[in-house]
Amino acid sequence: MNSSPNEKENHENAGADSRTPVTVIGLGMMGTALAEAFLKAGHRTTVWNRSADKADALVAKGAIRAATAAEAVSASPLIVVCVLDYEAAHEILGSVGGLLTGRTLVNLTNGKPEQARKAAKWAAEQGADYLDGGIMAIPQMIAGPGALLLYSGSPGAFETYRGELDVLGASQYLGEDAGLAALYDLALLSAMYGMFGGFYHAVALVGTEKVEASAFTALVIPWLQAMMASLPLQAQAMDANVHATDVSSLYINKIGFVNLIKASQEQGISTELVAPLQALVDRAVAEGYGADGLSRLAGLLKKPQ
Amino acid sequence: MNSSPNEKENHENAGADSRTPVTVIGLGMMGTALAEAFLKAGHRTTVWNRSADKADALVAKGAIRAATAAEAVSASPLIVVCVLDYEAAHEILGSVGGLLTGRTLVNLTNGKPEQARKAAKWAAEQGADYLDGGIMAIPQMIAGPGALLLYSGSPGAFETYRGELDVLGASQYLGEDAGLAALYDLALLSAMYGMFGGFYHAVALVGTEKVEASAFTALVIPWLQAMMASLPLQAQAMDANVHATDVSSLYINKIGFVNLIKASQEQGISTELVAPLQALVDRAVAEGYGADGLSRLAGLLKKPQ
Repeated sequence: MNSSPNEKENHENAGADSRTPVTVIGLGMMGTALAEAFLKAGHRTTVWNRSADKADALVAKGAIRAATAAEAVSASPLIVVCVLDYEAAHEILGSVGGLLTGRTLVNLTNGKPEQARKAAKWAAEQGADYLDGGIMAIPQMIAGPGALLLYSGSPGAFETYRGELDVLGASQYLGEDAGLAALYDLALLSAMYGMFGGFYHAVALVGTEKVEASAFTALVIPWLQAMMASLPLQAQAMDANVHATDVSSLYINKIGFVNLIKASQEQGISTELVAPLQALVDRAVAEGYGADGLSRLAGLLKKPQ
Repeated sequence: MNSSPNEKENHENAGADSRTPVTVIGLGMMGTALAEAFLKAGHRTTVWNRSADKADALVAKGAIRAATAAEAVSASPLIVVCVLDYEAAHEILGSVGGLLTGRTLVNLTNGKPEQARKAAKWAAEQGADYLDGGIMAIPQMIAGPGALLLYSGSPGAFETYRGELDVLGASQYLGEDAGLAALYDLALLSAMYGMFGGFYHAVALVGTEKVEASAFTALVIPWLQAMMASLPLQAQAMDANVHATDVSSLYINKIGFVNLIKASQEQGISTELVAPLQALVDRAVAEGYGADGLSRLAGLLKKPQ
């Protein structure tokens, strides 16, 4: 079962059926989807999970069940970890660190930039190459056209294994700071949560007059598409820190927000999801930015040092 | 200058150069754009604004300047009003209500459903047909392909003047309740604000590591596009009130939110725009909905009666 960490090099000139062996540690819904993708792509795929029965379906499809985490790490030059959190990853890998020497660890566990940076430091101490990753997809999307995976950390590891990582979805490398993938991942999540939150308020508001969510959504989507076209322009304004507008000033938005909040209250729904942006708009106007466009707001989220 | 309220009928069989005369009251940026659109489409366009000089540029392009609000109302069978707020609309039209008899009033002033319903009642008392409208566009978009205008109120008025209203942008009729256009307008605004708020948090978060907003936005847009595809599915779940998920439970989102909030704090940015949705997710889980999908959340915004 053991294989050399240099297996990639050994196999590279050995033909199409000798793809890089891959180990997947952690077989929740996402880890299982990752292992399946490698299997389907023809990789010798070794799997391990704390509860061994989670591997049964994968083994039936051709995966190799490792008896221990040590065996799993030793099986492949490329180790993909996707567990509940960084604590779980440390528990599993902490005792087998020595076996990681010369291998590449790709950690797709959800976490924070600080945790990713610590994990990168630990991996370096073991003599392992380290990539941290963020999966911008649900398990059902893995290996499909819509899946995006963000990576940061060792540029050499990304270059060496880009082909293997592309099996899972489109791969985007963000930089050497291992924390960047987690940072982008959380930022993209917050953008999604914002869009969802606005949608929930909107559906609740029209729902007070018995408008069906589905009928309303048919209007919301083209509207959001049209408004999304303003994001690159807003981003340019942010990068230039020039927020002049002849379209929609913060002062005009402050007036519009009063209607939105009052109408929501009159219709009997909570304003908890929209009130915070109103407060930020009001603060911006109070700080003298009334003539600026909405793009001014992102900068006001930076806390004074 | 006076013309019969029945001018539409008189003109209908009189050829292509005798389009319905239109009056536009209120010549802010939006009102000016509306008047320009009617002018360009070949309508005899009468304009009036409290500060008369706002009409100068339009008059130079062929608009007819009314000396008084009464003259403006009397000039056309179709009166379009777009002023700062309903109070301003009432001030202008209150004293000339009798002249509205037999005419159609299209009120595109921003406001709340309750205000629209009161205005519809008042217009009916004057013997006028009433449409309330919401303009889902900025002035620069009027008469262009992306402009959407929502209408509610008299179905007959919409049917009669749909051709004229289509000059301004795509026209969507929402129903007889005059408050619906304002309700949808505010709902669409709240959806936009949600998306923008999430974007601002996201940009601020990656900005802590000197990532440029423009570079990040190139990633955000396809991501939001992909996530937008879930809105019709979420809407179906809301309409059916069946929120089971095999994708992303509220419990999983609760865990993810902790990372998002902690990382935002560690990176030194305010969590004011994302914390409210976290609180709602936590409340949903506490109320026993942890196994449900995010679609559960909209219903929790309804306040107990």
